[in-house]
Amino acid sequence: MQIVFLFYDGMTALDAIGPHEILCRLPGAQVQRVAKSLGPVRTDSGLALIADKAISDVLRADLLVIPGAGNAATLRDHPEMLDWVHSIHNTTTWTASVCTGSLILGAAGILSGLRATTHWAAFDRLTRWGAKPVRERVVEDGKVLTAAGVSAGIDMALMLAAKIAGPQFAQAIQLGIEYDPQPPFDVGSPEKANPAIRDALRTRMVSLFEGLN
Amino acid sequence: MQIVFLFYDGMTALDAIGPHEILCRLPGAQVQRVAKSLGPVRTDSGLALIADKAISDVLRADLLVIPGAGNAATLRDHPEMLDWVHSIHNTTTWTASVCTGSLILGAAGILSGLRATTHWAAFDRLTRWGAKPVRERVVEDGKVLTAAGVSAGIDMALMLAAKIAGPQFAQAIQLGIEYDPQPPFDVGSPEKANPAIRDALRTRMVSLFEGLN
Repeated sequence: MQIVFLFYDGMTALDAIGPHEILCRLPGAQVQRVAKSLGPVRTDSGLALIADKAISDVLRADLLVIPGAGNAATLRDHPEMLDWVHSIHNTTTWTASVCTGSLILGAAGILSGLRATTHWAAFDRLTRWGAKPVRERVVEDGKVLTAAGVSAGIDMALMLAAKIAGPQFAQAIQLGIEYDPQPPFDVGSPEKANPAIRDALRTRMVSLFEGLN
Repeated sequence: MQIVFLFYDGMTALDAIGPHEILCRLPGAQVQRVAKSLGPVRTDSGLALIADKAISDVLRADLLVIPGAGNAATLRDHPEMLDWVHSIHNTTTWTASVCTGSLILGAAGILSGLRATTHWAAFDRLTRWGAKPVRERVVEDGKVLTAAGVSAGIDMALMLAAKIAGPQFAQAIQLGIEYDPQPPFDVGSPEKANPAIRDALRTRMVSLFEGLN
C-alpha cells in the first residue's frame, strides 16, 4: 500500500499532516513524502517539513494525496509537477486532495467532468478546470476524493481508511487520535459563519487564490 | 506574542501541527519551533519536521505548546529538556499541551495539584505527577491548558485563540481552516467507541506509555 504525499513550498501544513496522521496507521502503509527535490519544504505557516524523495524517484502510488496552499498559484510555474501528478494519478487506486489541492488536480487535467470540492473561498475556481463544484465536506467521484478547506482532510482520510481497511480499522484510528471534535464555536463553514467575518475573510483569501487560472 | 512549540524525536506530528495551523494566524504571532538542537526532528509517523532554534536559544515564551508522543518516554532521558520546559513555563502567559504532552508537563513539575487531561489511554498516568485527571477534551487550570488525544489540540488552540485575540478573531481562524468537523463515525472517545476496539487499542497503546514514571 504505497501512499504518496506531494509536498511543495507554500503548501498548508495541516492539509497534509491531518491525513498523514491517519493514513500512516493503515495496515501495510508505506508512506512517501515527495517534493520537486529531496529536502526541506517551507509551508505557508513558516514550518518546514522534509520530503524524503524527489518526484523523479516516484513512479506510482496506490493513494496520492495533494495538499492545498494559501496561495494556490504555487505550482503554476512548475508544469513538471503537474505532469507528475497526472502520471501518478494514472497509477492510483485513489487520488485525493485537501483544500485548494483540488485546483492542482484541476490544473493537472484530472477533474474534467468530475464532481469536486475545495476551500469554500476558492469554490468558483473549480469550474475553470471543468469540474462540477459540490458544497460538501468530502466529494467522491470515481477514484477521486476531494475535501473542503484544511481541516476537512481529517474527515476525508477517515473515510478513505474505512474504504481501504474497513470501518472497524478506521474506527480504531479515529479513537487512536481521539477525534471526537468539540469546536468552541459552530462557525466552521460559510453557511454558519457570521456574514461580516465571512465576507472579510473571503476578500482576503480570494486574492491569494489568483493563481492556476 | 512569542509562541513556542517544542519539537522532539518521536513526537506525534498532528499534536503540534493542528495547534500550529491555528496559532500562527494570531495577530502579531511570532512562532518558534524549538528542539534540543536546530534541525530535523523525526516524528512517530516517520515525517520529519525542522526545528528553527535550539532550546538553548529560547529563554521565554508568551505561549508554550508541548505535543505528545506515541511513546511518552521519549523525553525521560533528556532532563535538560524537562528543565527547559519548566523554566520557560515560568515566563509564559499560557502553557499548553496536547495528548501525552501533559505527561511531559507533569515530569517537568508543572502539574502538581492542577486539574489536567491527556490521551484517554494514558489517563491514569497523570496522577503520578500529582495532577487531578479530568475527562474533558480541554482542561484549563490557571494558565495551564491540557488537551486530550492528538486531534484535541485543534479545539484547544481555537479556545486559546479566543482568549488571546477575542472570539471574533478565533471564529475567523476556524472559518479559514473550514473547521466544521464531520467525522464518518461517532466513535472518537472511549465512552463512544466499540468496547472491543477500545480495549484492543488500549492494550496496544498502554505499552507505549511506559515512560515518564
